[in-house]
Amino acid sequence: MDSFDCDLFVVGAGSGGVRAGRMAAARGARVIVAEGGALGGTCVNLGCIPKKLYSHAAHYGELFEESKGFGWSFGEPAFDWDRLKSRRATEIARLNGIYDGLLRNAGVQLVRGWASLVDGHTVDVAGADGSRQRFTARHILLATGGRPQAPSGPGAEHALTSDAMFDLDPFPRRLLVVGGGYIACEFASIFQGLGSQVTLVHRGPRLLRGFDEEVSAFASAEMQKKGLTVRLDCTIADVQKAGAAQVVRLSDGSTVEVDAVLHATGRRAFTGGLGLEALGITPHADGTVPVDERFRTKVASVFAIGDLVGHKALTPVALAEGMAVVDHLFGDGKRPPIDYGAVATAVFTHPNIGTVGMSEEHARKTVGEVRIFRAEFKALRHTLSDSTERTLMKIVVDAATDRVLGMHMVGADAGEVIQGFAVAVQAGLTKAQIDRTIGIHPTVAEEFVTMREPVR
Amino acid sequence: MDSFDCDLFVVGAGSGGVRAGRMAAARGARVIVAEGGALGGTCVNLGCIPKKLYSHAAHYGELFEESKGFGWSFGEPAFDWDRLKSRRATEIARLNGIYDGLLRNAGVQLVRGWASLVDGHTVDVAGADGSRQRFTARHILLATGGRPQAPSGPGAEHALTSDAMFDLDPFPRRLLVVGGGYIACEFASIFQGLGSQVTLVHRGPRLLRGFDEEVSAFASAEMQKKGLTVRLDCTIADVQKAGAAQVVRLSDGSTVEVDAVLHATGRRAFTGGLGLEALGITPHADGTVPVDERFRTKVASVFAIGDLVGHKALTPVALAEGMAVVDHLFGDGKRPPIDYGAVATAVFTHPNIGTVGMSEEHARKTVGEVRIFRAEFKALRHTLSDSTERTLMKIVVDAATDRVLGMHMVGADAGEVIQGFAVAVQAGLTKAQIDRTIGIHPTVAEEFVTMREPVR
Repeated sequence: MDSFDCDLFVVGAGSGGVRAGRMAAARGARVIVAEGGALGGTCVNLGCIPKKLYSHAAHYGELFEESKGFGWSFGEPAFDWDRLKSRRATEIARLNGIYDGLLRNAGVQLVRGWASLVDGHTVDVAGADGSRQRFTARHILLATGGRPQAPSGPGAEHALTSDAMFDLDPFPRRLLVVGGGYIACEFASIFQGLGSQVTLVHRGPRLLRGFDEEVSAFASAEMQKKGLTVRLDCTIADVQKAGAAQVVRLSDGSTVEVDAVLHATGRRAFTGGLGLEALGITPHADGTVPVDERFRTKVASVFAIGDLVGHKALTPVALAEGMAVVDHLFGDGKRPPIDYGAVATAVFTHPNIGTVGMSEEHARKTVGEVRIFRAEFKALRHTLSDSTERTLMKIVVDAATDRVLGMHMVGADAGEVIQGFAVAVQAGLTKAQIDRTIGIHPTVAEEFVTMREPVR
Repeated sequence: MDSFDCDLFVVGAGSGGVRAGRMAAARGARVIVAEGGALGGTCVNLGCIPKKLYSHAAHYGELFEESKGFGWSFGEPAFDWDRLKSRRATEIARLNGIYDGLLRNAGVQLVRGWASLVDGHTVDVAGADGSRQRFTARHILLATGGRPQAPSGPGAEHALTSDAMFDLDPFPRRLLVVGGGYIACEFASIFQGLGSQVTLVHRGPRLLRGFDEEVSAFASAEMQKKGLTVRLDCTIADVQKAGAAQVVRLSDGSTVEVDAVLHATGRRAFTGGLGLEALGITPHADGTVPVDERFRTKVASVFAIGDLVGHKALTPVALAEGMAVVDHLFGDGKRPPIDYGAVATAVFTHPNIGTVGMSEEHARKTVGEVRIFRAEFKALRHTLSDSTERTLMKIVVDAATDRVLGMHMVGADAGEVIQGFAVAVQAGLTKAQIDRTIGIHPTVAEEFVTMREPVR
């Protein structure tokens, strides 16, 4: 026992902070977690969870259409945006309560307010009521996450970020989305599915940079088949308000009138008010906090994880990083390091994208000779649904070693399909091992184990 | 070149026969395929494909209900059975044509008619028009598949087999299904989903024998939550026709009035008319044809694969067996043997079951000490859908080696989720490798990689 108020002071009760706090407490550490906002952070409140719920909601619209080919008929479906919002809010509030319970049951002390670091062992917390509390800690873990970049450029004063989309009022019948990353694509797809007429404007020549190029192009084409308008190499030249609407002039000279403009042009690590400067911790140019391989900042007693560090801005990565810190500080230190290259992800565009490992381009640069296996097909369901949606699957194999370097899918539930393959790829999968596996018939996923001949 | 009419004569143009015929032709063999029925066999015409299409159709009924929780409303859905049947028939006819094209394009000669063996190198084919043709062959491959067991017992004369279910007329508002295997469970689930009131009667104490017991019990409970009535340790005592209906008295003394009775009490290898006796090939008591590890029968030039052999009555297994025979006869013989223990399967009950490897019970018997990991939860979607459906996931691990022996799931798209894990299990997956994998959030599948503590 020493004179610190706690062994670990966690700043931020998002995915990473809560996991780290609970795990540390389970290992006997005295833990305090400070949070000024809603418990659960971006994932629970403004990211993964509400986004996925809205994606489900949007997907039903397609399912109604599909069902007609199977013999179903019904009166014209109507969508009540206010009902979705209110039910989502209820569910998120329930999850906030679960996070609260998780912390309490773990014996973690939760302090409501915004924290700032006084020194490497001291934290001030400013409550919403103006109160200030000071805590000392043996270790401090920063897990404050990230926030959307503020809109900039013409019309920025009328533009929204993704944070505002979940409770938007009224429903935007016409929506302009600026950006080409996965968040822009997801919101564009989801609102299109819910009934908006969506235009996606991106200054670059392709969507989803960083993803396999064939996958990006295929997903982009599929999204457009569902009615989305995509304008590449394009920016906003001018925005004029027209009553509740906005008239947006684009750099290609065209004009589009919309009810809302979403800027989804990136997220930035949230260090505001943390007082890092006073400790001599200087963020990178992109706002992320520099850490070593043990997530230790320049100050030996201060650690940082998750979106704040930005290795991969994903909830499961923040969880893994939180557990890595706890293992190092309070465990046996035997946890294997995180393999960032093998982190699988899903993008909840319509159709979904699931991916693990290297893109074809990255693999060619990294290992040289690769074999590419590829299948593109109409899923069995769509033989009756009359949907024109197609599915793409792709395997990237190291020609020299037969190791599977990457697996990619665009299609229904791609993230569900890819998870198991991600386990196999992480474990060192070879193409020969895929070939030995008997497919599960009839599934979409079996197509991954029936690609015999490389396409290049 | 020798004096035989062909190098390979394939009896039966189902999944296994067509695949073997095409692959042999691709390796330069002269191939004849004989088929008296529809091309594609059970899978295409009376099994996997129409069943999965009907399962999709049934699933929409649930999706309509779910969507209400996401803000959707619409006039009462109606289901048109005749429309589903006719669209299915059109699609199956298209697939029949595709199989025809596959054979033709491969250079395979297709002979329409029922084949019987004269000797180990001679086949007679009886056409529907009464014609008879005789062919000689260097090798003969029997791939005649299986057929449902004929109904037996009280009321058998009024009962149907699964073959009759796809075109049943009219739609059975009330259906009794006899059997406890996966076919009985699938048809019960599908017709329940399409709007039938279904009673499943099984003489045994549990459904889905051979599956993990916890999985069977869980699936059975979930099926019953959707409205299905299950009567275990129960048989039919008596059946009385009552107009178009049947009044069925059960062994427990209860009575149920239904519009149709389906006996799904097993399938049997189809050897009728093949003339195996004349060649000295005697089927096993269960009707399957004995073969060695290269699928060779007692007669050196005669091979048999698929449901006729019955190692695992699954389409992908028949395909693999067909390719094994072709590799042996016409290839380099380097194809690794089929690992029947690692064959994954899906059951299209509602919810689906996906499974690979050993059940807990089988693992305990085989390896002794095991660790069981288990997760049971409500999928994120159902937090808004108001569905009470729950998902079960289970991992069976060899305590001594950490090898994953089995993975099991009951829940939406379980087959899609399991396929990738099946690849990993086939490749020798350990629990430590699962633990190292980062989840894809938010998915259902990620729950498989986040089970930290064994439940027993």
